[in-house]
Amino acid sequence: MLRPRRLSLPASIAHPVRLLPLTFLTLIFFGTLLLLLPFARSGQHSPEFLPAFFTSTSAVTVTGLATVDTASYWSPAGQAIILALVEIGGLGIIALATVLGLFIGGRLGLRTRLVAQADMHVVNIGEVRPLFRRVAMTMVFFQAVTAVVLTLRYRSAYFGDWPTAVWHGVFDAVMAFNNAGFSLNNDSIVRYAGDGLIIIPIAVAVFFGAVGFPVLAELFSGWRTPARWTIHTRLTVWGSIGLLIFGAVAFMLLEWNNPATLGGEGLWHKIVTGIEGGIMPRSGGLNSFDWDMVRPETLNMGIILMFIGGGSASTAGGIKITTFLLLAYVIWAELRGDPEITIGARSVAPRVARTAITIALLAVMLVTSTTFLLMLMTDYGFDVALFECTSAFATVGLSTGITPDLPPDAQCVIIVLMFLGRVGTIAAAGALVLRRRMPRYHLPEEQPIIG
Amino acid sequence: MLRPRRLSLPASIAHPVRLLPLTFLTLIFFGTLLLLLPFARSGQHSPEFLPAFFTSTSAVTVTGLATVDTASYWSPAGQAIILALVEIGGLGIIALATVLGLFIGGRLGLRTRLVAQADMHVVNIGEVRPLFRRVAMTMVFFQAVTAVVLTLRYRSAYFGDWPTAVWHGVFDAVMAFNNAGFSLNNDSIVRYAGDGLIIIPIAVAVFFGAVGFPVLAELFSGWRTPARWTIHTRLTVWGSIGLLIFGAVAFMLLEWNNPATLGGEGLWHKIVTGIEGGIMPRSGGLNSFDWDMVRPETLNMGIILMFIGGGSASTAGGIKITTFLLLAYVIWAELRGDPEITIGARSVAPRVARTAITIALLAVMLVTSTTFLLMLMTDYGFDVALFECTSAFATVGLSTGITPDLPPDAQCVIIVLMFLGRVGTIAAAGALVLRRRMPRYHLPEEQPIIG
Ligand SMILES: [K+]
Ligand SMILES: [K+]
Repeated sequence: MLRPRRLSLPASIAHPVRLLPLTFLTLIFFGTLLLLLPFARSGQHSPEFLPAFFTSTSAVTVTGLATVDTASYWSPAGQAIILALVEIGGLGIIALATVLGLFIGGRLGLRTRLVAQADMHVVNIGEVRPLFRRVAMTMVFFQAVTAVVLTLRYRSAYFGDWPTAVWHGVFDAVMAFNNAGFSLNNDSIVRYAGDGLIIIPIAVAVFFGAVGFPVLAELFSGWRTPARWTIHTRLTVWGSIGLLIFGAVAFMLLEWNNPATLGGEGLWHKIVTGIEGGIMPRSGGLNSFDWDMVRPETLNMGIILMFIGGGSASTAGGIKITTFLLLAYVIWAELRGDPEITIGARSVAPRVARTAITIALLAVMLVTSTTFLLMLMTDYGFDVALFECTSAFATVGLSTGITPDLPPDAQCVIIVLMFLGRVGTIAAAGALVLRRRMPRYHLPEEQPIIG
Repeated sequence: MLRPRRLSLPASIAHPVRLLPLTFLTLIFFGTLLLLLPFARSGQHSPEFLPAFFTSTSAVTVTGLATVDTASYWSPAGQAIILALVEIGGLGIIALATVLGLFIGGRLGLRTRLVAQADMHVVNIGEVRPLFRRVAMTMVFFQAVTAVVLTLRYRSAYFGDWPTAVWHGVFDAVMAFNNAGFSLNNDSIVRYAGDGLIIIPIAVAVFFGAVGFPVLAELFSGWRTPARWTIHTRLTVWGSIGLLIFGAVAFMLLEWNNPATLGGEGLWHKIVTGIEGGIMPRSGGLNSFDWDMVRPETLNMGIILMFIGGGSASTAGGIKITTFLLLAYVIWAELRGDPEITIGARSVAPRVARTAITIALLAVMLVTSTTFLLMLMTDYGFDVALFECTSAFATVGLSTGITPDLPPDAQCVIIVLMFLGRVGTIAAAGALVLRRRMPRYHLPEEQPIIG
């Protein structure tokens, strides 16, 4: 038996809770440097720090918000750098979040000795490597299929030559599965609006990217036996499908007669765009219609969907489906008067519910206070500012179009939000679970009046 | 020893959890009938059901939202009916919520045998009567002092004759302590803007009305020994003072240069209006400035303050200060990794925290969904609709001025919100605590990934 190699880092850094933010900070730093190189820009732009920093953060956190037009500001080389940053960022978040999940819970249906390392609080690179390989293979599989489908359609209907069609197909497939919202077009995917052969493959890739690796891994081997799925997989699968149907139906109903979106379109166009409207806020970021033109009710629904986000250890952001559904189960248990929080034939420890509530409330505080900041820094209304901040926090990448017009200080707020949204929820959840202390003594209880 | 008389109601109705909504429904019904009588209206109005129903609900729930102008639509007799409904509604909510609190917790610092009845789930009128008397005396004391102060100022500075000054002084004092927002003027208290001798007494009465009877009762006997206060009193007192200072300072800073509110005014005017701006959203409802003209940031701060509301068993609404602060303590315990939620040298049972979280989340869902409904029914934007719905749910009575223009279906939404906000949180909290079941068996635990 080979002695596994260790990460050549001090143990305090190799701790997965710290590894996550440090990895992403490093990636953002090098991404910014690369994007500042002359060949990354097109035209006669002089190097500007803030656009490079913003774009690097947006790419590494797989968000997709952009203060400059990806199609015209960056050269093809710059676009390739963005593509690489998104791919590394997506791979990184899936792998590190999965490692952290194993490190903490150890019950994701994967056979690995990693759990035994939990007491040592050090990640063993020899044991993590097979996991990274599986994650990478899963990503390559989904992205390759999507790229082929998109390329064929691009070649037959939009681009006259194969190289352009392949470049667009690969770029959009990588963006879709990584839930990143960058586009080679200056209008995102508006020019493909209603084209089901483009929108549906992109939406499917976004959907699977947002499910998360632990669930995909469990489904891969056990999709025929739903009764034996873990609670985590069950919550994620049914939650994702439920939110997809809810989002798509609500979007279609609300926008059915809006002349700026679905009003003048045929039934097929409405269905395709409805599916997109239900999937993209969690947390794609490509749009074939203008989010500035939807009804205010639709904008609010989008904010709620973005805030909930996707599955754990996925490329999606938000507070995550499991966190959201746990809150619902807490309410349900309380309404029924049940002493335990039960899901199926399993109970959830009160401490787990408390962590979920803390994550959700801290997220609400973060989004609310930064929305407040954005309103102080600009003249935008509450709904537009809230949409932008939620999109950044949940690393969605949708916008009502205000991102390029934000002043530098507001851009920095969005940068911080994207970073905290990407690594903050995961690192916080990990840190909270790992630092739980056992009670040493009990204080006398007292009951304040509630309500 | 005398055998106490029982309420001559079936036990199922006498249960305090059911007593609360039934009492308020009955009051609203008779209030509507009274307001439909010809002498209640001024001028040649024919009887209209909706204005009477809306006004009765708004008065009994001590809100103060109005679809018709209180000063011109109602005759002095009608205004006297509104005054009576507010007084009965305020007395009713304080007394019944206190009964319910004693019924559940039994540790409010009041000496009563009521707790012993908890197993029988029946309220004994012979034992509740002294409590009602104390509540009524407390209310009369605060309102009388306020009425005298206001009457003297009104006579010396605004009205030429004593009867008018007394009528306005008594009406405004009753409204202030009951946290109701009706006014005999068509401009609320805008004409007194900056007059500290009017605004400050009103704000003080609103503040004490929003503290709640159990706390006032404990402070009455034990204000010199804060170290021995119950957790409930401590949370309410420091929470009320903290929110007052936060609200007033934030209001002044945000509105300092707004020409539509404080911009052109002197320092004294700014301080007086700042105190009002900090106190009124929790949950007075009188306004000496136009909430339609404040900055969007101020509007949002007002929404947050309204949602939090005042103390338990008070005339204020909202999710209540204790509920809000318990959430903060849950987060704090989780961040510190503490197994128990501790406040001072006392611990709070996880079940109590779970009830607080349920109340808060249900309130968020109710306000969000009704805001959504209001947006579908009207053309108002998100912030204005959210402000109106939060004001109704938290029985505040502030408005950006849209209430009279709401279509009938939207008015019904507001009516339902005022009712649910007034009795819903209290009845829900009581019902949740009382129907807690003991565990019969334990299910195996499983831990979903969070964040
Ligand atoms: K994204
Ligand atoms: K009120």
